[in-house]
Amino acid sequence: MKPEENIILTRTGPGTDMGDLFRRYWLPALTVAELPHPDCTPVRLPILGERLLAFRDSSGRVGIIDEVCPHRRASLYFGRCELGGVRCAYHGWKFDADGRCLDIPSEPRDSKVKERMHIKAYPTLEQGGVIWVYMGPPEHQPAAPAFEWSLLPEANLFVSRRLQECNYFQVMEGGLDSSHLSWLHQGTMMDDPILGMGGLGKDARILEIMSADRSPHFETVESDGGLLIGARRRADNDHYYWRITQFIFPCFNIIAPFGDLSLNGQAWVPMDDENCWSWAVNYHMDKPFSEQEREYLRQGGGLHADFVPGTHQCAANASNDYLRDTELQASGKSFTGIPSFAMQDAAVQESQGRTSDRTLERLVSSDVGIVRSRRALLKLIQALQAGSTPPGVNPAAHRVRAASIITPAAKLEDVPKEALRPVAAGEGQV
Amino acid sequence: MKPEENIILTRTGPGTDMGDLFRRYWLPALTVAELPHPDCTPVRLPILGERLLAFRDSSGRVGIIDEVCPHRRASLYFGRCELGGVRCAYHGWKFDADGRCLDIPSEPRDSKVKERMHIKAYPTLEQGGVIWVYMGPPEHQPAAPAFEWSLLPEANLFVSRRLQECNYFQVMEGGLDSSHLSWLHQGTMMDDPILGMGGLGKDARILEIMSADRSPHFETVESDGGLLIGARRRADNDHYYWRITQFIFPCFNIIAPFGDLSLNGQAWVPMDDENCWSWAVNYHMDKPFSEQEREYLRQGGGLHADFVPGTHQCAANASNDYLRDTELQASGKSFTGIPSFAMQDAAVQESQGRTSDRTLERLVSSDVGIVRSRRALLKLIQALQAGSTPPGVNPAAHRVRAASIITPAAKLEDVPKEALRPVAAGEGQV
Amino acid sequence: MKPEENIILTRTGPGTDMGDLFRRYWLPALTVAELPHPDCTPVRLPILGERLLAFRDSSGRVGIIDEVCPHRRASLYFGRCELGGVRCAYHGWKFDADGRCLDIPSEPRDSKVKERMHIKAYPTLEQGGVIWVYMGPPEHQPAAPAFEWSLLPEANLFVSRRLQECNYFQVMEGGLDSSHLSWLHQGTMMDDPILGMGGLGKDARILEIMSADRSPHFETVESDGGLLIGARRRADNDHYYWRITQFIFPCFNIIAPFGDLSLNGQAWVPMDDENCWSWAVNYHMDKPFSEQEREYLRQGGGLHADFVPGTHQCAANASNDYLRDTELQASGKSFTGIPSFAMQDAAVQESQGRTSDRTLERLVSSDVGIVRSRRALLKLIQALQAGSTPPGVNPAAHRVRAASIITPAAKLEDVPKEALRPVAAGEGQV
Repeated sequence: MKPEENIILTRTGPGTDMGDLFRRYWLPALTVAELPHPDCTPVRLPILGERLLAFRDSSGRVGIIDEVCPHRRASLYFGRCELGGVRCAYHGWKFDADGRCLDIPSEPRDSKVKERMHIKAYPTLEQGGVIWVYMGPPEHQPAAPAFEWSLLPEANLFVSRRLQECNYFQVMEGGLDSSHLSWLHQGTMMDDPILGMGGLGKDARILEIMSADRSPHFETVESDGGLLIGARRRADNDHYYWRITQFIFPCFNIIAPFGDLSLNGQAWVPMDDENCWSWAVNYHMDKPFSEQEREYLRQGGGLHADFVPGTHQCAANASNDYLRDTELQASGKSFTGIPSFAMQDAAVQESQGRTSDRTLERLVSSDVGIVRSRRALLKLIQALQAGSTPPGVNPAAHRVRAASIITPAAKLEDVPKEALRPVAAGEGQV
Repeated sequence: MKPEENIILTRTGPGTDMGDLFRRYWLPALTVAELPHPDCTPVRLPILGERLLAFRDSSGRVGIIDEVCPHRRASLYFGRCELGGVRCAYHGWKFDADGRCLDIPSEPRDSKVKERMHIKAYPTLEQGGVIWVYMGPPEHQPAAPAFEWSLLPEANLFVSRRLQECNYFQVMEGGLDSSHLSWLHQGTMMDDPILGMGGLGKDARILEIMSADRSPHFETVESDGGLLIGARRRADNDHYYWRITQFIFPCFNIIAPFGDLSLNGQAWVPMDDENCWSWAVNYHMDKPFSEQEREYLRQGGGLHADFVPGTHQCAANASNDYLRDTELQASGKSFTGIPSFAMQDAAVQESQGRTSDRTLERLVSSDVGIVRSRRALLKLIQALQAGSTPPGVNPAAHRVRAASIITPAAKLEDVPKEALRPVAAGEGQV
Repeated sequence: MKPEENIILTRTGPGTDMGDLFRRYWLPALTVAELPHPDCTPVRLPILGERLLAFRDSSGRVGIIDEVCPHRRASLYFGRCELGGVRCAYHGWKFDADGRCLDIPSEPRDSKVKERMHIKAYPTLEQGGVIWVYMGPPEHQPAAPAFEWSLLPEANLFVSRRLQECNYFQVMEGGLDSSHLSWLHQGTMMDDPILGMGGLGKDARILEIMSADRSPHFETVESDGGLLIGARRRADNDHYYWRITQFIFPCFNIIAPFGDLSLNGQAWVPMDDENCWSWAVNYHMDKPFSEQEREYLRQGGGLHADFVPGTHQCAANASNDYLRDTELQASGKSFTGIPSFAMQDAAVQESQGRTSDRTLERLVSSDVGIVRSRRALLKLIQALQAGSTPPGVNPAAHRVRAASIITPAAKLEDVPKEALRPVAAGEGQV
């Protein structure tokens, strides 16, 4: 990769190429649970290099506005939500969810000064347990997202975000790279009750296929909203076993579950150029999560994390070697000794440095997924600059599903399309 | 504000414009209590971007000298105070309070080498519980300070300094901006037994006036040593209630108390360009502080702070959201939920960033105090460069008092001058 | 010193002058105990500004290789040592101690891709409880080191490395500067049972000489592999007491013990330009260390350190003023109140700043040792650039001993040479 390409793909602040692309989509900002009731404590929300503040006003409406009061530049975070807006702690200036200044207490009642004091405010919506934000040009605001999971009742969902202390792009590449599963996640891959192959239960065929072929063939195909990334293994003389991940622009994926386990989605939203919000979603199409499942996920099961209380900082992190158990690693029961999917990912991804120097990489054929994703995103940026509407903006492109299917198709483009469309749970998938 | 003005006002290292101005005044350096006895442990004292060391020699005299031994650049902080000086821990070189090198043990007794090894030393004096330092040109050293509080016996005083993790200028502006009191300090403004309006006791008239008019009119007038900043509220058809803060160049203020409570002063001394020492003084003209009052102030009452033991770091700080109690804030009993005047100030001021970007501010009429202070200081710098002696250097300018007075005067310049002069306690003030 | 000389002497990354010099010698990398058994957990090893990884393979052989996997730049530190190499945690690529890529699991078995994926690997050897590394040009690799201590059985040795948070050069200068002993280490100099003058036992003559003359005369003489640095004190009318430290290029010393105490060596290896590994060795020529001695050294006796568990960070460090006991210091029983040789050194050396600004120093005659060392190293660098083999590379130059001798010789060059050669313990030394 050329140095300038690495910069284009990893920089997302205002005015950057990739930043412009991100700003054409609805993005997950925070969970609904983080703003639990009207006039609760606001949340500082750094996204795409911008300092933002999220709050829920007295009517229950969510605002995502500039974190900083325009008057003397104090943070509105210390302010108080009251009567339709958030009041700055310093001099009491008050702003609503549209960024309008409702009150400047030191001014006479009939003063018009406040009319000139509006601040930045972005459209928000609540869907699928997530508060979404649109940070782009108003004339390009897309329709609401329509990911299968984002349209489900909250009972069927478990959603979380965690801080990862490196650039978003290497975290996202981890999510698009099926090739690492059988190494980094070895052990956990079998044992995790939410994501693991133990979910195959008595149907041991897939398990046998996966064990027999540890160097699958990878292919990619463009989809309406992104890219299909397929891993093909030989099933028998006439059939292949395909696992197909959906990459939906600019930062979403859908991963196929094993057996009847819950479905999985991820998203990656840059906090700034050196940190990112890593989102994980588990969802059942047809039933709520049990309290037992929720408790497991809350403690860092699946792709979620256990947290330092009151923060988005993971309890396992670089300062403690991600709670790596070197004896467990030596025993071979876990390839890394690190106790969960998410922390295994964090360990290797953060070890790549704050921004991985991709000019030094030595890529091989199994890296086709990430190579094509990079190319697709660079192409998208060029198209955007030429005036096109980028794919994935249209919510029709969100209504897809990852596939796990045995089929005679030897090429990814020949895998039956219906395997990649939403269906009732358990139907049509292996 | 122009970017270059923000730089001029906030940079105070050697050779800067504002640094030159600060170096024409006696400045509070540390409390007398920090050097409790002859030959006690020395104190590292970064001021105005210089690394200094304060120590008390065997005779009880205080020295403020270069922190670093000229020999091999080790810190004298680890040295030992003995027999008239501080000895470097590394090779035993010894320096006195005038910066003279008294001994180089590795040299023969009759060696003259030490005569060339003197180091920087600044004049000091002890007054009002404070060790003061003068860091400017010897030929311009002013007479000793003469603030009303600094001439009192220590029993009548409570003085402290705390670290604030941002540029001094935004901290000082907090002290000159009466406009924020009724918002940021709401609740505490009523309850604090040292600074609060509860001090008005049975005389509820001021309280009524303050409650009735929450958008006072602000004016400023030049004084001999600085600026008067007045807040005017209507008292009745023929009278106004004026609260007048004294700003004394370059970094002092005097605030009027409520009723018979103790008087108040503040000072702000840059540590470096990104941190400052925030000084607070409470004083009674005619009586000592009771042990109960002292204990309250030690625990962070009034404008003082509670500390991380053994440090100048406040126990409430950015890392713990200044111990903000979000339930207390939601209840409305405290506007911020942050438990003290000083920490409420620290929260908003530090949230402005290490150095607030004043070019982005949106000022209004209630900001006249800080606008005029900025202008006055910029003017002072120009005058200094033209060779003038800056106002406030002459200690006669220190002998002033803040006013809280009901008067027919509608303009600040017409308020009777005697209200702003030291008087016996309880006399002539409301 | 000129600014450019300070830069030359302190910068050791790839391609720097001093870095080139260091890369011509075997350097201590880690202790043997840090890689206790085949396939144990690898160790991250930043040296000379390079990110390296040390591991012990299944056969027991030690590899020191690039820390980073060439594939996607993840750290091999999280990898697993198995079957002759270390496997990257991310995708399972496997490397051996020679840096060869043994396996790329995603590739077909007959793929030749791995043959192009070798990584940096440096020669290592184990000697004297230490794993040594040679990071220079293969054609210049010297024979194995032959320090007297490095050839002893491990039972006769106690070796440790600790992190010091400043540039290596000022730490090394501390080791070459005998002039500071009677000040910085006063108290400890007498009391430490491993290094202290208490070791002189009933033979009080040296003690008397040292007490009587606290400003010894210093001289230096070039040796085969470095520099002799001698401190001369008058013993009686016809004799001098010489203490002679061996400085062996580029970063080793040998210090004379008092009486029959263990012998001492040190080494300083840059971690990067702002941190260094400080090595200390105690050794008996003719007997093992007792468990009691070992326990004392493990707790930070002699030149060793007590650690934050599981790290190379010293328990006493800048954040806690090196556990300085100010009452003990005031009492005069310890000149600094800091509890050990190593921590007293760390306190003053780290207080010089990350890289001491030597252009501001004021050197005196007792600094001749460090002045000459600087000159010698600068000369060496010039000679190296002109194509010479630097002194000290030949292991013959390692077989030297520090001297503590009473002799009529008034000049260092006249001190009998045999005093500086290895001898049986107790023989020929005072």
